[in-house]
Amino acid sequence: MIFIGEKINGTRKSIKAAVLERDAEQIRRTALEQAEAGADYLDVNAGTSPDRELEDMLWLVDTVQAAVDLPLCIDSPSPSVLRAAADRAKAPPIINSVNADPQKIEAILPLVRDLGCGVIALALDESRTGMPRTLDERMENVDSMMRGIERHGIAIENVFIDPLIMSVSTDNGAGPMAFEAIRRIRSAYPGAHITGGLSNISFGLPRRELVNRVFLALAMAAGMDSAVLDPANTALIETLKATELLLARDRFCRSYTKAAKSGFSRK
Amino acid sequence: MIFIGEKINGTRKSIKAAVLERDAEQIRRTALEQAEAGADYLDVNAGTSPDRELEDMLWLVDTVQAAVDLPLCIDSPSPSVLRAAADRAKAPPIINSVNADPQKIEAILPLVRDLGCGVIALALDESRTGMPRTLDERMENVDSMMRGIERHGIAIENVFIDPLIMSVSTDNGAGPMAFEAIRRIRSAYPGAHITGGLSNISFGLPRRELVNRVFLALAMAAGMDSAVLDPANTALIETLKATELLLARDRFCRSYTKAAKSGFSRK
Repeated sequence: MIFIGEKINGTRKSIKAAVLERDAEQIRRTALEQAEAGADYLDVNAGTSPDRELEDMLWLVDTVQAAVDLPLCIDSPSPSVLRAAADRAKAPPIINSVNADPQKIEAILPLVRDLGCGVIALALDESRTGMPRTLDERMENVDSMMRGIERHGIAIENVFIDPLIMSVSTDNGAGPMAFEAIRRIRSAYPGAHITGGLSNISFGLPRRELVNRVFLALAMAAGMDSAVLDPANTALIETLKATELLLARDRFCRSYTKAAKSGFSRK
Repeated sequence: MIFIGEKINGTRKSIKAAVLERDAEQIRRTALEQAEAGADYLDVNAGTSPDRELEDMLWLVDTVQAAVDLPLCIDSPSPSVLRAAADRAKAPPIINSVNADPQKIEAILPLVRDLGCGVIALALDESRTGMPRTLDERMENVDSMMRGIERHGIAIENVFIDPLIMSVSTDNGAGPMAFEAIRRIRSAYPGAHITGGLSNISFGLPRRELVNRVFLALAMAAGMDSAVLDPANTALIETLKATELLLARDRFCRSYTKAAKSGFSRK
């Protein structure tokens, strides 16, 4: 599993305030905490208005990379912000994100190819329907992005497909929709990664972390191999380790047994 | 999900002692605790030597049924003990168990038909190989039992097929073996129940309950709809409720939301 640490996100109040106030110490702490808990990438989202996002994002990238060497997952709606921020990153980042909108594909994929970096590919098409409602719509969007990926000569292992996880409280079928999308993507594109934010699924429900971690187990069984999550969430990590064990992805139970000894902190 | 409460089992030291000492109060407490936690059936296993099992089992059945009206899952290797105990039960029980051994089939299935009760059908053949090693062996055993079920005119919804869950610490592939067996049984016999003991899977590992509950989620996704478990285990029940929610088996999230309010005790 590839973990993308979710916490440096300007849609969270405390992070937005830290960005606006240039509170480097808080950003540094949040970055270190996720790195120590075993994040493979750190999501970085300034979350501020378009007129100042570029400046805020560059400060944020510089601040995070002063604290940790981890590669970033640079998260912005703006291709120019993504490009500028990627230039400041210490290691090839994941660009977050592209979708099936042809303009977006042409704006983002050349950058991904030039940097030889990763990209999150959302199974939606901004230029048309917005959020897809059906499984087939999701697959059409994925297929058209994957044609773009091939056309631009991007290696499939650099692609992180996000099937778009909806909330089960607003759509009772959100679970099976996600699992079936994951199975179909895994079968059509075995070389690609499949990722997504876990927390959408539990929006509006009590005991959200319980729902998130059971979702993680079921999504992994369906073929998900990456997630945007909080790597310091021990209950989530212990579910993940037990799932790897039960899916025969943990030879001689070594990783599980070792993790259990350390109380399931990832490192 | 149909819960079979696992605790009144003479292979557990404290229960065996209670049976030998005729400690009715302890049996009564264990029965009530499981009934209050929401068991649908109570497994009843005397666990004593063949020369005294009949007498012990009848005492155990009488003692449990003096405490609760719940139907029993009568658990014995002996057809005559099963028959005598079933006669003392207040409601049609589940007979635990039959397997693909032709002698066993002929000894057990007429009783099941006469009582119109349930039966646990283990995917092994005592007369041949003992524990099956492969998926195909399991399916052959299931198929031959299901032919017996049909020949004896037993309703398929009275059959609880147990795919035989092995421990992942001795066989790294035990998880996928169980999930694939469950999927194949579900597909071949959609009208039957699929059950099994959860705790085998985690034998020899640390944090066994964690492994058991993640296994339950993955087994439910594969098609298991019953389990032999401790219904008073809140962490297990909360995983089960979240899994039903995520598999779209909980309309408007009502059952989950209600269970969360009561701290996930089942009733």
